Amino acid sequence: MQDMKNTIPAVLISEVGPRDGLQSVKATMPTEAKKRWISALYEAGLREIEVASFVPAKLLPQMADAAEVVKHALTLPGLTVMALVPNLRGAQAAIEAGVHKLTIPVSASAAHSLANVRKTREEMVAQVRNIVALRNERAPRVLVEAGISTAFGCTIQGDVPQDEVVWLAAECVAAGVDDAGLSDTTGMANPAQVRRLFNKVRAAIGDKTGAAHMHNTRGLGLANCLAAYDVGVRTFDSSLGGLGGCPYAPGASGNVVTEDLVFMFEAMGVSTGVDLERLIAAREPLKAGLPGEPVYGMTPQAGLPKGWTTVRAGAARQGAGERNGSAA
Amino acid sequence: MQDMKNTIPAVLISEVGPRDGLQSVKATMPTEAKKRWISALYEAGLREIEVASFVPAKLLPQMADAAEVVKHALTLPGLTVMALVPNLRGAQAAIEAGVHKLTIPVSASAAHSLANVRKTREEMVAQVRNIVALRNERAPRVLVEAGISTAFGCTIQGDVPQDEVVWLAAECVAAGVDDAGLSDTTGMANPAQVRRLFNKVRAAIGDKTGAAHMHNTRGLGLANCLAAYDVGVRTFDSSLGGLGGCPYAPGASGNVVTEDLVFMFEAMGVSTGVDLERLIAAREPLKAGLPGEPVYGMTPQAGLPKGWTTVRAGAARQGAGERNGSAA
Repeated sequence: MQDMKNTIPAVLISEVGPRDGLQSVKATMPTEAKKRWISALYEAGLREIEVASFVPAKLLPQMADAAEVVKHALTLPGLTVMALVPNLRGAQAAIEAGVHKLTIPVSASAAHSLANVRKTREEMVAQVRNIVALRNERAPRVLVEAGISTAFGCTIQGDVPQDEVVWLAAECVAAGVDDAGLSDTTGMANPAQVRRLFNKVRAAIGDKTGAAHMHNTRGLGLANCLAAYDVGVRTFDSSLGGLGGCPYAPGASGNVVTEDLVFMFEAMGVSTGVDLERLIAAREPLKAGLPGEPVYGMTPQAGLPKGWTTVRAGAARQGAGERNGSAA
Repeated sequence: MQDMKNTIPAVLISEVGPRDGLQSVKATMPTEAKKRWISALYEAGLREIEVASFVPAKLLPQMADAAEVVKHALTLPGLTVMALVPNLRGAQAAIEAGVHKLTIPVSASAAHSLANVRKTREEMVAQVRNIVALRNERAPRVLVEAGISTAFGCTIQGDVPQDEVVWLAAECVAAGVDDAGLSDTTGMANPAQVRRLFNKVRAAIGDKTGAAHMHNTRGLGLANCLAAYDVGVRTFDSSLGGLGGCPYAPGASGNVVTEDLVFMFEAMGVSTGVDLERLIAAREPLKAGLPGEPVYGMTPQAGLPKGWTTVRAGAARQGAGERNGSAA
């Protein structure tokens, strides 16, 4: 018999709630509450958490305690502690705080890039290059990820040509990032497009193709994650309780709910390393730290299905069989 | 240039709201309101609608006007008018009313079958055979569908063995049904299971494999529809505003939302024949006929994305290219 707890997860669920979620709501979660929430997420088995943004406190007071939150997260063994950095100054602060991985948002939409950060995409690539140079000099073991936002459409310019997304991903890799993921910032992606675009990006940058960051704006979040999984994506961003979205893309909202995403993969027999009951329990410190804030998720509402343990074990066996090509 | 309006839809969206939805809520929608709603669904382009259940009015007062609702639906040219019939008496009444297609629920879960209709699965198959005999004698052009419920799991017995689902589908086909669809009555399906089970059923009954009737209980409704599409399913049941579920499977709820399903396929370039703006407008007569009843749907809430017409036309071209094997 296989001991499920000792297998390496087949997919990595990268929890973005403490960053993407908390910076999207008006209220500021107290620092101690953030620590409790991050610990609960870790206890559920999550091993990559985007814990903060390193941005000026006057712009995002919700993230003013970024360094202290990182310090806490670094005490959790085996956790990859990520932070979003919008620029070189943020990267300096994040590296000083001791993060393991930086993520830099770079918009594929020319219009969104100008509206959001008042920079062209070429200027953003130059900034990525500067951050990579800083990393190489100060903290060579820190990973740098480019998060290609508005990769599937833009609320400002509409269509975002696929070739421009592929070009931008390749430019970021040329600038030295370790991987480039694709974000459906605006909730406009569909499964056919997800498959096409990830395939094209992989053809250009190979195994530097990073995470799928999908939104559930129009209900397609999980279908898009499935589509990404089908074409080889193995890292998925999501947010506990679906907290957050992108406050700078008008009309966009709704991260994929971590609970539902984990349920989907575990039910399929694709191991996530996450204990779903503990994950659902991790909603409590979130709710306690943000009283009155809406928290989403279908699986927590419906509860786990009857015979969940058996179902999951059976699915794991069948999934393993399929991966070995032995299933009917 | 291709005229989109004259192409045959690539998938058939079978709207179940007026039956599955309306029989699941406590309130009874007035007959005139039902007619207005069904007409609005038809105006949006839906060409198969399950309009009623033929059951004793004392059990389901919401469906007491089934014959009158069918009579109205029959005035809409090109619409396939479906009704659910739980038994021979219901089938007689539905045929007399003039429906084009009968759907008979048959539970794959032995425990659910006994709890729900106090019959074994074998007794249900015998009943299907009797209904087919009636159809052959009285109305040979009427189609008969078996809807295999609890096909992906049961809230009473938990796991439902795949072989039993395949056996039941084959028994129903041997009993003379035109097709057998699979229903995730309890919201327990996952995409890997959907692909496996539809493949197995198709291996057993070929092109008599019918619709995918998925629920969104744990948020996987659209992902499961995508999985079914991937393995060749081309008919999908869904409910406007996600109205309904199965009142007899405790804890189960949540039909797939027609608006989100149509959005997914149209965005993928898979034509449904449905006009999404008119479909969203068809929520108004639903709300008017059922004041205070919650109506769901992410796409109606978020609105159509910027450049939707262009996006869809581009997707249709790419989709057509892929079907012809000519896309990159």
